[in-house]
Amino acid sequence: METDRNRILTASIKRLLRRGAVSHLRKIVEKTHAGDLQPIFQSLSVSEQRRLFEIIDDDVKKGELFSRLDSDTFLSLVSDMEPEEIANILEKMPTDDVADLIGRMPEEMSDAVLQKMRKEGSEEVEDLLSYGDDTAGGIMVPEFIALREDITAREAIESLQKEHHDVEMPFYLYVVDEYGKLVGVSSLRQLVLVAPDTPLKDFMTTDVISVRTDVDQEEVAKIVARYDLLAVPVVDESNRLVGIITVDDVIDIIREEATEDILKMAGAGEEFVETQSVLKSTRIRIPWLFASCIGGIVAFFIIGKFEESINKVAYLAAFIPVIMGMGGNVGTQSATIVVRGLATGRLNIHDIWPVVLKEMSVGLILGLIYGFLIGAVAQVRYSTAALAFSVGLGVVSSMSIAALFGSLVPMAFARINIDPAVATGPFVTTAIDIISVFFYFIIATNLLGI
Amino acid sequence: METDRNRILTASIKRLLRRGAVSHLRKIVEKTHAGDLQPIFQSLSVSEQRRLFEIIDDDVKKGELFSRLDSDTFLSLVSDMEPEEIANILEKMPTDDVADLIGRMPEEMSDAVLQKMRKEGSEEVEDLLSYGDDTAGGIMVPEFIALREDITAREAIESLQKEHHDVEMPFYLYVVDEYGKLVGVSSLRQLVLVAPDTPLKDFMTTDVISVRTDVDQEEVAKIVARYDLLAVPVVDESNRLVGIITVDDVIDIIREEATEDILKMAGAGEEFVETQSVLKSTRIRIPWLFASCIGGIVAFFIIGKFEESINKVAYLAAFIPVIMGMGGNVGTQSATIVVRGLATGRLNIHDIWPVVLKEMSVGLILGLIYGFLIGAVAQVRYSTAALAFSVGLGVVSSMSIAALFGSLVPMAFARINIDPAVATGPFVTTAIDIISVFFYFIIATNLLGI
Repeated sequence: METDRNRILTASIKRLLRRGAVSHLRKIVEKTHAGDLQPIFQSLSVSEQRRLFEIIDDDVKKGELFSRLDSDTFLSLVSDMEPEEIANILEKMPTDDVADLIGRMPEEMSDAVLQKMRKEGSEEVEDLLSYGDDTAGGIMVPEFIALREDITAREAIESLQKEHHDVEMPFYLYVVDEYGKLVGVSSLRQLVLVAPDTPLKDFMTTDVISVRTDVDQEEVAKIVARYDLLAVPVVDESNRLVGIITVDDVIDIIREEATEDILKMAGAGEEFVETQSVLKSTRIRIPWLFASCIGGIVAFFIIGKFEESINKVAYLAAFIPVIMGMGGNVGTQSATIVVRGLATGRLNIHDIWPVVLKEMSVGLILGLIYGFLIGAVAQVRYSTAALAFSVGLGVVSSMSIAALFGSLVPMAFARINIDPAVATGPFVTTAIDIISVFFYFIIATNLLGI
Repeated sequence: METDRNRILTASIKRLLRRGAVSHLRKIVEKTHAGDLQPIFQSLSVSEQRRLFEIIDDDVKKGELFSRLDSDTFLSLVSDMEPEEIANILEKMPTDDVADLIGRMPEEMSDAVLQKMRKEGSEEVEDLLSYGDDTAGGIMVPEFIALREDITAREAIESLQKEHHDVEMPFYLYVVDEYGKLVGVSSLRQLVLVAPDTPLKDFMTTDVISVRTDVDQEEVAKIVARYDLLAVPVVDESNRLVGIITVDDVIDIIREEATEDILKMAGAGEEFVETQSVLKSTRIRIPWLFASCIGGIVAFFIIGKFEESINKVAYLAAFIPVIMGMGGNVGTQSATIVVRGLATGRLNIHDIWPVVLKEMSVGLILGLIYGFLIGAVAQVRYSTAALAFSVGLGVVSSMSIAALFGSLVPMAFARINIDPAVATGPFVTTAIDIISVFFYFIIATNLLGI
């Protein structure tokens, strides 16, 4: 339903763009939420995007759209805009989104845009840019409501009525001491419920969950999810409140991180490339296939060593695919369970041996089941017990090794702080392929005496 | 850091459980958030879990823990509890979580527990259970703040002070007409900011984004993410407000759906199984490997057909792994990009041909690059131009077919409403394996004239 509506909307916008029906387009764009404009933009050609973007009157909506577009579309839109025009839009956006966009621009452009922005705004942005991209500091907004612990509920409400209109989502009211250090949290709801003369420090919650500016964004997402928060305050090394991270940004992080992990596991880059050009996606995917290419070449040198045996028993070769396939699939299962388990916190990085041992047991049992099955088929087909036994044993060894590798490699990578998702996909499966084929030929040539 | 703290906490809780230091444990448990107790529970033995659970005094905390535990742990905990004890805990929980837990219990237990609950509560739960598990109706909470459009801001604040204390997250105030139909939304903030005598209908936002009870939970998550909402109201077919879905539940949905997709793509079941027993995980993983087993068996019958050719040119077999490996990896890349693109809404289900065409182009270019490279290595190793050319062409065809299959199959599955994630993993890779090997042998035997 949802997609159907969007498809119809996209089609009529394209038609109106062709006809140059500007005033009609303007009305549609005005009524459409930036969240709905984004997929429409992504499916337009570059020149259509530019024309449609010019029709948007509202700088706020332009900004909302900017923060939703992928880097390519954003950069192509701003490439022929004046720095001043860009600055005007950015000034209407939350600081974290501005910092994110500025970070994507080529340096020349970002310098020019920052110069055109009001001094206060550009300083805030530069502050944010000084933190790591993927840290709490890099994703926080410096706009938040901080009230002093000694004011009363009434004074707090009055101050909310007078100021703080630019705060994104004002549901938590943070309470700070005279040095700006975070000492508590309250809510608009509490302010309304208590007697107006009660000072904040008498009813605020003092047990505040906060994160340091240098905490990784994935960790921030876990904390927000674990404690069901709507926002988490960010503090510097001396516990001074410097920003907040809101749950809508956390949702984006969770989706991005999941996409990143999935793509990395498949060896398809880190960012979603479908909307990019054929050449660009080819370029991103080339290096990941290199591991598998090298692995394949190694495998053919290994099999080459057994050329004589194959000359004697040609059908030995017929079982290469099943040995590789079974190992590869079990290895992928194990690696995926470990990578996702670590990402969601269901597996602990320190439980390396219990996890690997369990995966190996599963791999061994699965190997025995499928080894017996495949060995039996080989026996029926070729009526050679030694061959059937070799094939069966080859499957068992391939599947056990695969489960061992598939679980051990990502766990070990995580321990030495390498992203375990990268370890899966091409690398692990390629290693498993080579080792499985090698073991199979060793077993078969020995058992068949060739 | 976070994990270190949890590990230390887990270790000391285990030690105290062994020593039976109940009063010390009680103090620790009191101070620990249910979100932190969950990972601790998951790493305890069943008997330790039961003992620790009994030490928790607070029914609210027990409920928070219940809603965070996986089904196995939850069921083993409640299996020896009295229905009345369970009912007491459930009554302190949000209705959506209760419905979720009741849905996991065996029917006998859930009937007994529902009978022990207060009539009002159990009716609400049964209402929720009447909606599909994964629909908006199944995940909403029926507690929300609905104000009549004709009352004033002051009256609204007074009513909030008097009632609605059981509402989970009261930041949106929904406005309904005399029939209970959703007509607008306001916020505590707006109530505080406007003149106290203004009626709600004069300042409420009338453009409310809502979902119908039968909308799929994945669609709900997309809507909340797209419009940056903290909660979304749920309406029945006549637009009457019946519940809300809050962002914390949406975060859980996004994480669950990502995990589910990742596991399905790897053919490792649908639910995270690492915490379950070896036998249970083996059982879950067996069927997914069957596709690959059948595929392997088909492959060896195909290769068997070329036995004579292999007898003549033994090293033909040496290239099977590289042909399979390159195809498999490109296929996985394409399938992953499509599956994730559909899940995140970056690909449109109706763009089937542009997407498949683009993937095929990428597969063809990658095939030409790697086909040339691998063909060159074959030439260096065996100095047979016809063989080198066959291998190169085999790689090109394998990689193009893989990209075609990898993108077409999940797109087609999505079109006929089958979860595309299931289509990836074992099924697609197995099909690619068989077809690639077949084409390679056809090409090679023809070019080599054997």
